[in-house]
Amino acid sequence: MGGVKLYGSPMSTCTARVLLCLEEVGAEYELVPVSTLTGEQKSPAHLARNPFGQIPALEDGDLVLFESRAISRYVLRKYQASGADLLKEENFAESALVDVWLEAESQQYNPAIQPIIFQFFVVPKRFGVSPDQAIIDSSLEKLKKVLEVYEVRLSKSKYLAGDFFSLADLSHFPYTKYFMATPYASVFESYPHVKAWWDDITSRPAFKKVAASMHGS
Amino acid sequence: MGGVKLYGSPMSTCTARVLLCLEEVGAEYELVPVSTLTGEQKSPAHLARNPFGQIPALEDGDLVLFESRAISRYVLRKYQASGADLLKEENFAESALVDVWLEAESQQYNPAIQPIIFQFFVVPKRFGVSPDQAIIDSSLEKLKKVLEVYEVRLSKSKYLAGDFFSLADLSHFPYTKYFMATPYASVFESYPHVKAWWDDITSRPAFKKVAASMHGS
Ligand SMILES: N[C@@H](CCC(=O)N[C@@H](CS)C(=O)NCC(=O)O)C(=O)O
Ligand SMILES: N[C@@H](CCC(=O)N[C@@H](CS)C(=O)NCC(=O)O)C(=O)O
Repeated sequence: MGGVKLYGSPMSTCTARVLLCLEEVGAEYELVPVSTLTGEQKSPAHLARNPFGQIPALEDGDLVLFESRAISRYVLRKYQASGADLLKEENFAESALVDVWLEAESQQYNPAIQPIIFQFFVVPKRFGVSPDQAIIDSSLEKLKKVLEVYEVRLSKSKYLAGDFFSLADLSHFPYTKYFMATPYASVFESYPHVKAWWDDITSRPAFKKVAASMHGS
Repeated sequence: MGGVKLYGSPMSTCTARVLLCLEEVGAEYELVPVSTLTGEQKSPAHLARNPFGQIPALEDGDLVLFESRAISRYVLRKYQASGADLLKEENFAESALVDVWLEAESQQYNPAIQPIIFQFFVVPKRFGVSPDQAIIDSSLEKLKKVLEVYEVRLSKSKYLAGDFFSLADLSHFPYTKYFMATPYASVFESYPHVKAWWDDITSRPAFKKVAASMHGS
C-alpha cells in the first residue's frame, strides 16, 4: 500500500512523537505493536530494526530508521506535499530556529521532565516501590528553570521557533501530556504564555487523536 | 566581513563540535571567547545569546542560534556551496541516516561518555575532590554497550550513516578526543572497526586543527 510501518506502542512517549508527525501530515501508516512491558524491544526481530533495543522504529520499504526525532524529520520530509510544513526547510533562518528549539526540547526540557514521569508513573508500577521524592523535587527545580526560559520566549512569539507551529512544539507533547496527569501539573500555572501555548497545541486534531491512543492498551 | 561569530571556548566540547563544522566548510568566522571558568556564560550579554546560559552561541547578522547540534546544521547548510556535504540533504535516505546516527550520538553515546569526562577531568579541577569511581564504572559499562552497536554498524559501512563522512561522525569527536586521554582509552581496542573509524576521522585536517586548539587557553 506504500504506507510506512511504525513499530512501537502509543503509550511510549517516543512512539507518540512519531505518531503525531504521521497524523499531522495525514500519512498512511500501520502501527505494529512492540511492547516494552514484555521486553519485546530486545527481541532479535526488533534489534534488527533498532540495534539499541528501543522503540520506536520505522520501516519504509528497505529503509529502517530509529530514534524518534530522526524518524520525525524523515516523516515530515517524506510527506512535505501534505502542506504541513513543520520543518520550514525552505527558509534558512526559520529552519535553524526549529532546530534550535527541537534541541532545547531534547537537551534541556526532556532531561528535566523525564525523571518526574519515570518516578511518578513507571517506578511504582514496574518496581512496586514509591517514587524517589528527592529526584522528583530536583527535577521540578530544573523544569522550572527551563519553563522560565520558555515563558520569555513564548511572550515574544506564538510558538517556540517563531509565529508558526513546528516540530519543536510538537516534540514537547508526549512527556508534557503525562506530566499534566501528575500532582505537579499546577507548576504550569505560573507561566501564562507557556500555558496558552500548551492549550493551543493540545487543541490540534492530531494531538487529540494521539492523546486518546496514549491511554489505551 | 560577512563572517559568522561563534561565542565559546575551544576547550568546550560543544564549541569544538561547531568549530569542526566551520573548519570542514572553510567558513570565515570569528571565535569570540566566552569562558565557563569565570562564569561568563551566565552574564547578561551571553544570556541574550543563549537564554540557557551555556556555550556555544552563533551570531550571523540578526540571527542568533544556540545548541551545538542545531548550530552545526545551520553552518553546514549555509556553506553548502563549499562542497563539504555533511548533511546529504539532497538524498532522502542518506539524510535520514545522518539524522539517525546524529541522534545516536546525542541520545546514546553522549550520555554514556559525558559523565566519564566530567568525573575524570572536571571534578578534580573544579571541586578539588577525587572522581566518583562508581559513576565512571557504570558509565564505562554503558559506553561498551553503545560501542558494541557501533562495531557492528562500522563493520558494514565505513562511516556511521553509510559510506560517506557526515555530521554524525563529526559530532562524536569532542568527547571521544578527551576520552582518549583517560586511562580508559584502551576500551576502544576491543572494537577494531570503531578504532579504524576513529583513526580515519582524526586524520582529517579540520580535526587536527581543532584538536590542537582544544588543548590551548
Ligand atoms: N532516544 C530514543 C529513546 C527511545 C526510548 O527510550 N524508548 C523507550 C520507550 S519510550 C524504550 O524503548 N524503553 C525500553 C528500553 O529502553 O529497553 C528515541 O527518541 O527514540
Ligand atoms: N546541549 C548543549 C550543551 C551546552 C553545554 O553543556 N555547554 C557547556 C560547555 S561544554 C557549558 O556552557 N557549561 C556551563 C554551564 O552549563 O553553565 C549544546 O549542545 O550546545
